[in-house]
Amino acid sequence: MEKRDLLYEGKAKKLYETDRPNVLWVEYKDDLTAFNGEKKASQLGKGKLNNKISSLLLQYLKEKGIYNHFIQQLSDHEQLVEKTTIIPIEVVVRNTAAGSLAKRLGLPEGEKLKSTIVEYYYKDDDLGDPLINEDHIELLDLVDSASLNEMKELSLKVNRLLSELFQSCDLQLVDFKLEFGRDRNGEVALSDEISPDTCRLWDVATNEKLDKDVFRQNLGSVEEAYQTILNRLEGAVTHG
Amino acid sequence: MEKRDLLYEGKAKKLYETDRPNVLWVEYKDDLTAFNGEKKASQLGKGKLNNKISSLLLQYLKEKGIYNHFIQQLSDHEQLVEKTTIIPIEVVVRNTAAGSLAKRLGLPEGEKLKSTIVEYYYKDDDLGDPLINEDHIELLDLVDSASLNEMKELSLKVNRLLSELFQSCDLQLVDFKLEFGRDRNGEVALSDEISPDTCRLWDVATNEKLDKDVFRQNLGSVEEAYQTILNRLEGAVTHG
Repeated sequence: MEKRDLLYEGKAKKLYETDRPNVLWVEYKDDLTAFNGEKKASQLGKGKLNNKISSLLLQYLKEKGIYNHFIQQLSDHEQLVEKTTIIPIEVVVRNTAAGSLAKRLGLPEGEKLKSTIVEYYYKDDDLGDPLINEDHIELLDLVDSASLNEMKELSLKVNRLLSELFQSCDLQLVDFKLEFGRDRNGEVALSDEISPDTCRLWDVATNEKLDKDVFRQNLGSVEEAYQTILNRLEGAVTHG
Repeated sequence: MEKRDLLYEGKAKKLYETDRPNVLWVEYKDDLTAFNGEKKASQLGKGKLNNKISSLLLQYLKEKGIYNHFIQQLSDHEQLVEKTTIIPIEVVVRNTAAGSLAKRLGLPEGEKLKSTIVEYYYKDDDLGDPLINEDHIELLDLVDSASLNEMKELSLKVNRLLSELFQSCDLQLVDFKLEFGRDRNGEVALSDEISPDTCRLWDVATNEKLDKDVFRQNLGSVEEAYQTILNRLEGAVTHG
């Protein structure tokens, strides 16, 4: 496999073309951004950790039958993924009140939700990724309603699988964001990373935050937190 | 009918008990508020106009089969309504991009929407009446899902009826907000006012704004704008 031209540089990753038309070469960066890009930093080791965590989680989900873009990890910072056309909707699944949900509904952070919440956000930096509903999605033609239902069902399935996996290593999956794309056949495929940048993960015993909130809220070492996640996941997957 | 104790004073209306347990006496105030109460003013004549417009529209909808709380107009500022328990959801129906929708989705104001948009907002001043989805409604137990569907269907029916009525007097119904309550039998009843405080209404020929945006955006005389709406509606209903 040969790495070719840079196709896209995002906040946390660079995507390169390869000599195969349907395969992309992903490079995880050490950059962290929050609050729609207003807070920025670079954290040595972050890219490597997210690449490893995301590879592990996407491989795990693939083995559990969740079709996704992951092909293989190449190196500390790099992985190969299938090229998909991203559907511009961020699907957020929530098990516990935190972040914007706590603020929106006036719920205390940490309150267990009696029903799982699925939210759609319009992936548009200029608009600040606003919350949208199904009528907005139809109006903007972001995706057809059958595929949206599929995305929702897949997200709930991912929630069950990941909650179980994290629970087995004493981590609580508070909420997370997924993105989906279409592969060359038009199939909906889970795409993008799954990492402490995109999930809220708390220690089950202490409620210690081990995710991007460490960066957002200046709670300590991002690298240590993410390393804890990786160590526990490797233990769980190896011994599971 | 006897007016009794003040039950509730809102931004635009006072509600009094009467000698009948299921009937409320509504007094329309001249106060105007916008931006979640941040901008305030009093406009002589506004209460009277909204009382008349709302009476006319609710009566019209009743005759067209939309069950609602309106009983009768009593005086310039007053009307009688059935007592309902308000469901804390504001239903917004949109035909044309304006206000928060234009901002949320980055659409130019005045763009006709190719599909009608229905939005739910959590009626909570402290939270700033945030946009919510059906999962949030279930989580907060704001209303059961059958009643929510009923509210949505009723809102779309009201949209068809009012769009037609306004069209007949050269007004474009851009968007509007409805509230619903439950009557003593638990039936869902359209409640609250329908007026230029709760609808965006533009002149069909000139796009002149004849609603609360005149106040929000300092576009001229609120009284004149609302008087125009009333005059045109009275013409349409009388000659229709």
